[in-house]
Amino acid sequence: MTLSTIKPGKHQKIRADLLISGGLILTFNKNKKVLDDGAVAVAGDQIVALDKTSVLTQEIEAREILDASGCLVMPGLINVHTHAAMTCFRGLADDLPHQEWLHEHIFPAEANHVNEETVYWGTMLAVVEMIKSGTTTFCDGYFCEDGAARAVTASRIRAIVAQGVIDFPAPGVPDPRINVKAAEAFVFRWQGKSPHLIPSIFCHSPYTCSPETLTRAKEVCRQHGILFQIHLAETMNEVDEIQKRYGRRPVEHLRALGLLDEETLCHHAVWISEEEIELLAQSGVGISHNPESNMKLASGVAPLPRMLNAGVKVGLGTDGCASNNNLDMFQEMDTAAKLHKVHWGDPTLCSALQVVAMASSGGASALGMGGELGSLESGKKADIITIDLNQPHLTPIYEPCSHLVYSARGADVRDVIIDGRMVMRQRQLLDIDEVEIMGKVREIASRIRG
Amino acid sequence: MTLSTIKPGKHQKIRADLLISGGLILTFNKNKKVLDDGAVAVAGDQIVALDKTSVLTQEIEAREILDASGCLVMPGLINVHTHAAMTCFRGLADDLPHQEWLHEHIFPAEANHVNEETVYWGTMLAVVEMIKSGTTTFCDGYFCEDGAARAVTASRIRAIVAQGVIDFPAPGVPDPRINVKAAEAFVFRWQGKSPHLIPSIFCHSPYTCSPETLTRAKEVCRQHGILFQIHLAETMNEVDEIQKRYGRRPVEHLRALGLLDEETLCHHAVWISEEEIELLAQSGVGISHNPESNMKLASGVAPLPRMLNAGVKVGLGTDGCASNNNLDMFQEMDTAAKLHKVHWGDPTLCSALQVVAMASSGGASALGMGGELGSLESGKKADIITIDLNQPHLTPIYEPCSHLVYSARGADVRDVIIDGRMVMRQRQLLDIDEVEIMGKVREIASRIRG
Repeated sequence: MTLSTIKPGKHQKIRADLLISGGLILTFNKNKKVLDDGAVAVAGDQIVALDKTSVLTQEIEAREILDASGCLVMPGLINVHTHAAMTCFRGLADDLPHQEWLHEHIFPAEANHVNEETVYWGTMLAVVEMIKSGTTTFCDGYFCEDGAARAVTASRIRAIVAQGVIDFPAPGVPDPRINVKAAEAFVFRWQGKSPHLIPSIFCHSPYTCSPETLTRAKEVCRQHGILFQIHLAETMNEVDEIQKRYGRRPVEHLRALGLLDEETLCHHAVWISEEEIELLAQSGVGISHNPESNMKLASGVAPLPRMLNAGVKVGLGTDGCASNNNLDMFQEMDTAAKLHKVHWGDPTLCSALQVVAMASSGGASALGMGGELGSLESGKKADIITIDLNQPHLTPIYEPCSHLVYSARGADVRDVIIDGRMVMRQRQLLDIDEVEIMGKVREIASRIRG
Repeated sequence: MTLSTIKPGKHQKIRADLLISGGLILTFNKNKKVLDDGAVAVAGDQIVALDKTSVLTQEIEAREILDASGCLVMPGLINVHTHAAMTCFRGLADDLPHQEWLHEHIFPAEANHVNEETVYWGTMLAVVEMIKSGTTTFCDGYFCEDGAARAVTASRIRAIVAQGVIDFPAPGVPDPRINVKAAEAFVFRWQGKSPHLIPSIFCHSPYTCSPETLTRAKEVCRQHGILFQIHLAETMNEVDEIQKRYGRRPVEHLRALGLLDEETLCHHAVWISEEEIELLAQSGVGISHNPESNMKLASGVAPLPRMLNAGVKVGLGTDGCASNNNLDMFQEMDTAAKLHKVHWGDPTLCSALQVVAMASSGGASALGMGGELGSLESGKKADIITIDLNQPHLTPIYEPCSHLVYSARGADVRDVIIDGRMVMRQRQLLDIDEVEIMGKVREIASRIRG
């Protein structure tokens, strides 16, 4: 039930839990409607009304008022690709050749230190960082993801949390023969456990998972109605390897295995041809674009403008902290907008509006959650952030979207509401002890440092 | 006189004005020395001692102590290319074709709204933004720069402030025949007026200034011992135009005119050949690298790794707010480090250490101020910033430089000292009324909006 359709009697006010009032509201609905001096009413976990503040204060009686004057109000950002627990490895190994980085630093650190406890604390730290920079939903994949699921449940952020599958011994799953079974067991443990946690399965890649592993994992996802995730066409080496092994390019390989549909999310899609872009568009698959990670690892530049033109459902992601090294979606938006302009030689590409849409409604669509998330509309989940505009680097304002992409940063986020619940107010986290979390991750890091 | 060479008697302490204690100190001296639990002593406008906190607290009696425990302490950042007053146009026109952006938006806005008053307030806003993101020195060029010089004097930031020269009617100089004379008059008015303000002349570009204008302006700079600045080889169009007009590429053109020496700073240098890189290295000219602006305007990617290899003196700059759109040097460092990795296909290029060096000691060298600025060493100017490390996105820490480039952002700067004077403490500006400044720029913007 949405209250926007209910007309109150002349003197009767509608009850709501929260009224966010007096803000500059960017709805990111279909028409990208902007409301100056607008208000959003929240009841339970839903947005129930949006209008001018003067109108809503007449119609709504709210238990709590959040004065957002001087603030921009928008949907919470959606980070569609993370390995959240890798905050534990933030800055552990940078500026190295790719193979050395992976085989001499990241893989050994993972083998020695990734367990449910480190994943819990690493994910908690990621959650804190994400909330403090305006992300309200993230889509994760890693090993020992019970730790991540516990962190999401404890912190009340919204997340898709995927158990990783790889045809090698992995943290928590030393026997790769049961990798898909272990992932299915994870799904059984967490499905339906929390309204803001959705389990998923993440097959590492076409070059580390056999066709059998991939199809079995996808089958499990189908049975449970959950998202199947995979890294895809991230590097040129991968394309060469898949072509050598299977005689076809990675996207065609996944298509041939029946993996490309609306319940699949592929990460990166850097090295894809025009034909592959067409395949991605037709299949309805979601794609995560992660420009900072692709830049830092020198993976390449994904053909984002062509994907968007072809109608591919693309969301924005940061990737893990070993290859970024933060989870700030504002920086990611800035980089996405600028990278494609210079790479393709056209300053009109990837406009600010397109990029913010990719980080909100686009991300929701890529996750198959476009009906619930990604815009401020009656009936959608109340995942809402406010941004303090009264700051030197956000002054003056001609075009709010330009500011979000080219001037703002995560630290400008003032308040965060997830699932109708205020989780950060005036930059203070309300339910999470960030000092304890930082302390725990420092302990983990001191063990990693050895 | 530097106190580091003076040995106190057994019970006699050396007096200083300020002792910054207990920090993780990144000196950026020649050996890139790092001091854990270190301290910096400041007397007057100079750094007079650096050592372990336990040592300096024995030796130094300071009028004021700044407890920097939990903070990183480093040289203030140097932004070598700004048009500071263009904060007034922040976000006015983005994502447009270059000619439309310039001729239909920026030039008309400048013609109608740039005067000494708007330049004063626009520069004040830029100064506030820069201090709050850790920049202690900037190198500016624009029109009506008396306004900028007044802002620098009032705010006590350190700056090189250049009056613009162009062979067209310009704000404040409607008759281009007297453009160099007007710039020289500006130099007369401001040279020696303030210890932290150095006047300069900025010829717009080789395609908007005749050879006669360029050589006359450079001659005036030589007479006054000041820096000559110019945009150089920013776009492919410029290279074509200069080749058509003068039968040589832009760098060769400047060299032939006798403009390339250690007192010249060229901005951008995007489209330069191997031979031109060699010319730049041999001449001792300074170069500003402005990756975010070059990306946003789709100008191209400067051959930074090859310039650094060839020994060209390169500093980092943000450019003006019409083409970035903020002045945050932390974001600029992040972008610089990542852009070249992906563009040249090598993740080892532009390491975090190289990039922070470029934003500090490299910038000082490019400005010809390497003897005074850019590192924490006894005898150098006390331009110092502290960064609050006790934050989720900076946790844990393995390598401080990695954090500065890949994880930190301007808002993490806690305290700023310029010329020995504390200008920001715990993110509060001590001498500048930022609310008034934002209000004034909003008034200007409402006139621009019309």
